[in-house]
Amino acid sequence: MQDFIVTTGPLCGSRKIYSNPPERADIQVPFREVMLADESQPVQRLYDTSGPYTDPNVSTALDVGLPKIRERWLEGRQFGHQQGQGELSTSDIPFCPAPHTVRRGIKGQHVTQLDYARAGIVTEEMIYAAWRENLGRERHQAAKPVGTAASQRGQRVGAPMPDYVTPEYVRDEIAAGRAILPANINHPELEPMVIGRNFLVKINANIGNSAVTPGVAEEVEKMVWATRWGADTVMDLSTGRHIRQVRSWILRNAPVPIGTVPLYEALERVGNDPLALNWEVFRDVLIHQAEQGVDYFTIHAGVRLAHIPLTAERVTGIVSRGGSIIARWCLSGHRESFLYEHFDEICEICHRYDIALSLGDGLRPGSIADANDEAQFAELKTLGELTQVAWKHGCQVMIEGPGHVPMNLIHENMEKQKEFCADAPFYTLGPLTTDIAPGYDHITSAIGAAMIGWFGTAMLCYVTPKEHLGLPDRDDVKTGVITYKLAAHAADLAKGHPTAQQHDNALSRARFAFRWEDQFNLALDSETARSFHDETMPREAHKTAHFCSMCGPKFCSMKISQDIQEETVRLKGMEQKTEEFRKQGGELYVETV
Amino acid sequence: MQDFIVTTGPLCGSRKIYSNPPERADIQVPFREVMLADESQPVQRLYDTSGPYTDPNVSTALDVGLPKIRERWLEGRQFGHQQGQGELSTSDIPFCPAPHTVRRGIKGQHVTQLDYARAGIVTEEMIYAAWRENLGRERHQAAKPVGTAASQRGQRVGAPMPDYVTPEYVRDEIAAGRAILPANINHPELEPMVIGRNFLVKINANIGNSAVTPGVAEEVEKMVWATRWGADTVMDLSTGRHIRQVRSWILRNAPVPIGTVPLYEALERVGNDPLALNWEVFRDVLIHQAEQGVDYFTIHAGVRLAHIPLTAERVTGIVSRGGSIIARWCLSGHRESFLYEHFDEICEICHRYDIALSLGDGLRPGSIADANDEAQFAELKTLGELTQVAWKHGCQVMIEGPGHVPMNLIHENMEKQKEFCADAPFYTLGPLTTDIAPGYDHITSAIGAAMIGWFGTAMLCYVTPKEHLGLPDRDDVKTGVITYKLAAHAADLAKGHPTAQQHDNALSRARFAFRWEDQFNLALDSETARSFHDETMPREAHKTAHFCSMCGPKFCSMKISQDIQEETVRLKGMEQKTEEFRKQGGELYVETV
Repeated sequence: MQDFIVTTGPLCGSRKIYSNPPERADIQVPFREVMLADESQPVQRLYDTSGPYTDPNVSTALDVGLPKIRERWLEGRQFGHQQGQGELSTSDIPFCPAPHTVRRGIKGQHVTQLDYARAGIVTEEMIYAAWRENLGRERHQAAKPVGTAASQRGQRVGAPMPDYVTPEYVRDEIAAGRAILPANINHPELEPMVIGRNFLVKINANIGNSAVTPGVAEEVEKMVWATRWGADTVMDLSTGRHIRQVRSWILRNAPVPIGTVPLYEALERVGNDPLALNWEVFRDVLIHQAEQGVDYFTIHAGVRLAHIPLTAERVTGIVSRGGSIIARWCLSGHRESFLYEHFDEICEICHRYDIALSLGDGLRPGSIADANDEAQFAELKTLGELTQVAWKHGCQVMIEGPGHVPMNLIHENMEKQKEFCADAPFYTLGPLTTDIAPGYDHITSAIGAAMIGWFGTAMLCYVTPKEHLGLPDRDDVKTGVITYKLAAHAADLAKGHPTAQQHDNALSRARFAFRWEDQFNLALDSETARSFHDETMPREAHKTAHFCSMCGPKFCSMKISQDIQEETVRLKGMEQKTEEFRKQGGELYVETV
Repeated sequence: MQDFIVTTGPLCGSRKIYSNPPERADIQVPFREVMLADESQPVQRLYDTSGPYTDPNVSTALDVGLPKIRERWLEGRQFGHQQGQGELSTSDIPFCPAPHTVRRGIKGQHVTQLDYARAGIVTEEMIYAAWRENLGRERHQAAKPVGTAASQRGQRVGAPMPDYVTPEYVRDEIAAGRAILPANINHPELEPMVIGRNFLVKINANIGNSAVTPGVAEEVEKMVWATRWGADTVMDLSTGRHIRQVRSWILRNAPVPIGTVPLYEALERVGNDPLALNWEVFRDVLIHQAEQGVDYFTIHAGVRLAHIPLTAERVTGIVSRGGSIIARWCLSGHRESFLYEHFDEICEICHRYDIALSLGDGLRPGSIADANDEAQFAELKTLGELTQVAWKHGCQVMIEGPGHVPMNLIHENMEKQKEFCADAPFYTLGPLTTDIAPGYDHITSAIGAAMIGWFGTAMLCYVTPKEHLGLPDRDDVKTGVITYKLAAHAADLAKGHPTAQQHDNALSRARFAFRWEDQFNLALDSETARSFHDETMPREAHKTAHFCSMCGPKFCSMKISQDIQEETVRLKGMEQKTEEFRKQGGELYVETV
């Protein structure tokens, strides 16, 4: 394992920079800056989820783990703690040997970000997350979108987004339950971020091995790879025998929040027999994962005995793995779910480590036919009740959502979630807007994801091209992440997020001026953009060509552009327009058709 | 050329069938039927755009051309006509030698489908198109979607869609201008189809060589390939020296309507100098293409002199190739567009051959920043005026739309188009919902396309992964077509189209019952679905495995499913439910998470 190498180094045309918020010189927040060939254009600064791996000045080693940037902050909070023992593996897969101090909150103490927020205290994590949301711009530099038209309006959903995010705003959104900042006190390597409808839309990437494909090192690389391309959080859904070992390597090397479904490990511990599950095993798993540093838990506590018969007439029954395990357990012996019955104790454990609860939708629809049915909304109502319980315990909460939903029923999902769950952040899987395109479900779901993100969903769980067909490999992970980054960004644009449109404008200007290299480097996936261009026009000279393969060199659109510009100015009789137009980098660019 | 082979043979797991509408035993309409492994399930019949190429009983040869299925119908209409001479090529690329009779309508005669519709006459083309829309089901078999829930509702936009499409309904929609049936009287090989908001959403695929990549045979294969995967129409946007020769091969071998932008050929004829363009050259091109059999023309007649200054402050100016050519021409000499000034004559020519007008949006936005601006809507208003002129001449019309539009501004595009253009069908390029993902613009645009299709757009012009970067190759064409098929289908579902959901339900049932082969064969792209599955579980036995790579064999979800089903029945105390559930093929299927 120690010899295993993950992908490092900056993205093409980008450099890592650090910037500190005005409140704290010692808090260094990372960003990515795209350097443009046209130096008269402003450098484009972008949100950066990739951690130290893209910083050529930081050397990383998996057995050492990432720098513990939160260590000093956490020490200041005086949690009860003990030195980590270093776990002994009973298999040939070792645990990550990176030093790890286990911390535990004490009852009555402020532990969670929600505790601090309610007490009016701004934490270092909130300052860090606020500065990320602003892309490290001070208030007077707040984004002013450029454009001629109506596209600037956006439609801000729910509480209005501010033009500038202060640490106090982050605090207040967390206090209101409208946002969470998932950050286990045992995950000091984490670069804090905030999830809520009034912030940038976030995306999650699922990784994880299974009994069929038991690779381990590959999963760590998938985590690094997913964050390289923009995953804001990663869920480790491993189900194999080495589930704990895999997770230790992931956590000590993860710059982003890590989520899990603890039920999977519990099932593993009882020999994969759902009926052998019990609260004690589950509790032990929670505590073990909590002390490893997992930042959020999917808990399927909304699958109650009474809901199960509601799925009997569905086309695709219960499709959530967690949901079906719990349903099986409930039906055997006709008993209420132990997750539901022990939910107070689950909250106590989560509070002790500041683990955010991600209330799972075990009864989500698995097909268009089953969307928005009684079973789904009965469970959602229960999740709303559990949200109140979690808040009572001082726990951060978000709510998981579907799944498979036709476009006309997506808005109802968002509205019902807001109503039942009192504005807790919504976290959806897609939804897929049709069932007929296996192999393309990253796309069927990106449609639904972009829409529900616009309507107010705070985080979108990616779907890869392999969904329904197999486990995603490294390429699928990248395709899933890029697809969801573009969906989340489309949602940010539609919501009128103040920083969103600058990126589009920078790329469009590069495109219009035939600055090919700038266009590639500003792209979400510069490698693919460059390689596609090179397929038709491979020569280096073509990178500065003032034409493209669509029209060819003979039809010079640049010349037409000059003429249009000059003539327009003459017609309008306003000479100062020339200068303004040039300032905007205005040139004529020609697409197909 | 004659030796060039295109892709033929049925799609995997499918067979070609023909069905005649009750009105006419001699009209044979093709469909694709997916044969299921589970014979208790109904055969799934699908709309089929692929022409005779997927019929193993028809042998095709490019130099012979396709069977002329409309020949007898056209003969019955007694158009003036002359034998085609066979064109002489002045280059090394020959014209297609397939026999071709040139027909011309006579003034005062019913020529266009609109003429017939207004006169209350149902044409063979209308009968054919109606039967296609019904998927060959008689009224009493009209689709009844199955599902437990709200997904059945749909949201029917504009005039309500009927549950069953009669030839008279097609006629009335055409008469009202809400639909078009593009079918040049010189394209007898065409399999008629209808484009309008109250029918299935259609998709167009662009092909075409350029000065940089001058392949010819490849373009014919791209047309066949695009229709194989579901393209309802194809636009030939070739711009090279052999533009006329390429088109002759495409038309004689095209089962779908072919569209062009005649301005491209006109520019070619005047040595690629926009200023050398004039009405006479353009008119000659129209007539030549009309007699070859082009079914619809993109005409950028809405780019008026007065609109051009409105683009001066845009981030990306004028990005339509046609739009920039016309703008250049207008500005030189400060003159009104010859397309606008000669629009009556253009309509007269189009009427003579029944060529549908696709009024081009030369001033469409080329970036998020420019969406819904004054230039765009000024042009759209002009297109509305021209729609009235075209209708006065008895011409069929549709309206082209953007382009690049953030999600929050998409609905306004549809509403303004309906308002300005009196319900003429809308035909949009995407729109792309963000500019930051070159290489993934099939996805950025599928989001916008699905949404605007739901809102009432009748046809979606595909965007391939190569958009903005290069010319699409064969793989890109397939990716673009499949992506747009799924977007159009998502729109049909959201609109509540009566036949749409059956396909989703059939696939979901196969998925839930682990009928892997049925799931693959029901997929829009069965080859990709199968190959993705085989990457993780390649062995043949796994095709019938009651598990997948997500959970593996140890966790038997099927067993859980049985238990849930039986227990549910017991709890509900309704024994008859067992049978119903089994009838629905109910089994437990488990997704990831």
